[in-house]
Amino acid sequence: MNIVILDANTLTLDNDIDFSVFNQYGDVTIYQSSTDEEVGERIKDAEVVLCNKTVLNADKLSKAPNLKYIGLFATGYNNIDIEAARARGIAVCNIPAYSTERVAHTAIMMILNLSSSMQIQQAMLARGDRSNFTKCMQVSHVEVNGKILGVIGAGNIGREVIKVAQALGMKVLAYARTPRPDEDNLKFVSFEELLK
Amino acid sequence: MNIVILDANTLTLDNDIDFSVFNQYGDVTIYQSSTDEEVGERIKDAEVVLCNKTVLNADKLSKAPNLKYIGLFATGYNNIDIEAARARGIAVCNIPAYSTERVAHTAIMMILNLSSSMQIQQAMLARGDRSNFTKCMQVSHVEVNGKILGVIGAGNIGREVIKVAQALGMKVLAYARTPRPDEDNLKFVSFEELLK
Repeated sequence: MNIVILDANTLTLDNDIDFSVFNQYGDVTIYQSSTDEEVGERIKDAEVVLCNKTVLNADKLSKAPNLKYIGLFATGYNNIDIEAARARGIAVCNIPAYSTERVAHTAIMMILNLSSSMQIQQAMLARGDRSNFTKCMQVSHVEVNGKILGVIGAGNIGREVIKVAQALGMKVLAYARTPRPDEDNLKFVSFEELLK
Repeated sequence: MNIVILDANTLTLDNDIDFSVFNQYGDVTIYQSSTDEEVGERIKDAEVVLCNKTVLNADKLSKAPNLKYIGLFATGYNNIDIEAARARGIAVCNIPAYSTERVAHTAIMMILNLSSSMQIQQAMLARGDRSNFTKCMQVSHVEVNGKILGVIGAGNIGREVIKVAQALGMKVLAYARTPRPDEDNLKFVSFEELLK
């Protein structure tokens, strides 16, 4: 089986990721990156193409008559022409749960940073202003507990955000296409009510 | 009743805090700050002294024969000679639950910031480096979920930290003088085991 990796350099710096795991499945050719002009020639004998951001539109896919599977090193798959792949029976797989927790935790981190003006405080510290108690009080500090957080979308990431926000003592209003039963400090509302 | 506030400027900037709530209890004298030399004269007729950081040692307390109550605008009370106050029957009250949630949430914020090298990322952003995907990958990103957090002390603040850390998917080892029953992802251990 011919396996072609088109854009390894979007994943690894200084080849610090080991792609040899794929060797058991076939002959693997690894390209660090591929221009639009290079892609057609590179995938023409491929049965499996693995990539992250390389664009595979209908024209490119037509150059790969043996292609059966496109594996994305990513959650997004907007670089793949899904309709053209479906018409050809080519399976396209993304990573839906890519860094779910960390994305949610980053949202929480940002909320906490904003609530205590963290960036301003770091700048004050760098200037040596933090020893002045009065100046420290000039920075806005807000407690998040008791505040209302609006979460749009309650999929994997949204649910993780909601769980941590509840632990922080926040009241959560969530909008989701498929609302769930309300919980302590969690109420599903319409999009309009959430914004309001 | 004579009420003396010794260091209002440790609490308020531009007099943006209203101290008039105390007027219902007696005659209130407000000093913005008080030096060691000024304290004795200022508290000599006081029955109530309110302060934040002003030092009241045995010598100072001896200047205030009518003093019955010292109220601290703070959690810490290391600026008060507790033994001297006790010997005189002077009540000393601090604020044990001062900003419990925010202190705990700040610890969580710091953990999340460290885990994603937030300060380095902000500096990169300020320099315009964030548009370079490869450079972004040079920054250390660590997921906290699944990691073990050691919490020393499980009082009000420690318990709040533990609650949020559990929601973040961390496993918590806690050391407390009064251990509690273990919970999901929470185990009470000895100080030595926690450090190990």
